[in-house]
Amino acid sequence: MFELHDFSRSSAAYRVRIALAYKGVDHQRVGVDLVRGEQHEADFRSLNPQGLVPVYSDETLHLSQSLAILEYLEERYPQPPLLPASREGRARARQLASLVACDVHPLNGFRVHVYLRDALGVDMRRRRAWFLHWLAEGFDAIELWLAAQGNPPRFCVGDAVSLADVCLVPQVEVARRNGLDVDDYPRIAAIERACMALPAFRDTHPDVIGAP
Amino acid sequence: MFELHDFSRSSAAYRVRIALAYKGVDHQRVGVDLVRGEQHEADFRSLNPQGLVPVYSDETLHLSQSLAILEYLEERYPQPPLLPASREGRARARQLASLVACDVHPLNGFRVHVYLRDALGVDMRRRRAWFLHWLAEGFDAIELWLAAQGNPPRFCVGDAVSLADVCLVPQVEVARRNGLDVDDYPRIAAIERACMALPAFRDTHPDVIGAP
Repeated sequence: MFELHDFSRSSAAYRVRIALAYKGVDHQRVGVDLVRGEQHEADFRSLNPQGLVPVYSDETLHLSQSLAILEYLEERYPQPPLLPASREGRARARQLASLVACDVHPLNGFRVHVYLRDALGVDMRRRRAWFLHWLAEGFDAIELWLAAQGNPPRFCVGDAVSLADVCLVPQVEVARRNGLDVDDYPRIAAIERACMALPAFRDTHPDVIGAP
Repeated sequence: MFELHDFSRSSAAYRVRIALAYKGVDHQRVGVDLVRGEQHEADFRSLNPQGLVPVYSDETLHLSQSLAILEYLEERYPQPPLLPASREGRARARQLASLVACDVHPLNGFRVHVYLRDALGVDMRRRRAWFLHWLAEGFDAIELWLAAQGNPPRFCVGDAVSLADVCLVPQVEVARRNGLDVDDYPRIAAIERACMALPAFRDTHPDVIGAP
């Protein structure tokens, strides 16, 4: 049995929790309290020198980076799939997942807020504006890509959950927690509703997991 | 034949150029001059509402996000492979690719520098410190992950080029261009040397492509 090193309010870790729940994969969850700084402790640094969650670990493999963990889990536990059956569908799922994981989330991570505050002296109001700016840029782009697919699909790519939804929903959770009006993004809001009707998304939500 | 919408000095676009050259895939390159603002023109926005390169486009598929494009190309043109044969090797390649693409590159993109300068009034000296901070954090982590693999491999994962090298080398190019001493990172520097001995990396280098 492997371990998932996790923090409830890490949106990157929430992605992996969703995938594991969706696939029904048995594992051991290990909470790493980022607020208390447990990611800086030697034990955790030996697993991931970056001090970031999530981390997958078993006897022979330690793996960071949620996108890489998701692809690994997809290969190892292919059913039910989180990648569409068609090559174009897989490309679209990975594109939207990557849009969240590369263009939105990294700019709004905790370590970035700390740098803006401590090294650049950016006050809370302008840190919030920064946060909302990158979120809005990303969500605008996702809405347009979803619109380009014609009739609103149930999920990001067609009628089945994919890695795109697995990445999008945690980012929406962060957005809501920070006061963004997600109803300004009707396609994203509809996909979130469809996802949150599923236990895999609901039971792994930060509020359900509880801290850490 | 498909088009690659490209800008020579975009490190995300350089990744895709390397993969196409490595696999010997015939395509049409379309330069998008980010310095002249061509990414804001309506024609390009109709391909990618985010106004970012690279973009893959053919009759039926428009695809942004370099990681998604790389995975799509890997599925469509599997030889020579850019993903290792073993599941653990594939996981490691995707992890290191993602470390560059999610944790380093997004924080140092052009649009981030513009926001720091125009919205937050951060001067050039402190923008440069920002840039070098995230680069050093990422390269430190990559060095440690490479060291954890034991004897220095020739490339990021063993003795064959993978998506990890395809993402790492363009980031090293950016680092060098901005005055970082890459020799502080001996494993990264050695991998870069091994890659730059290959035509796929050398012939697609920004200086060789020329602007835009």
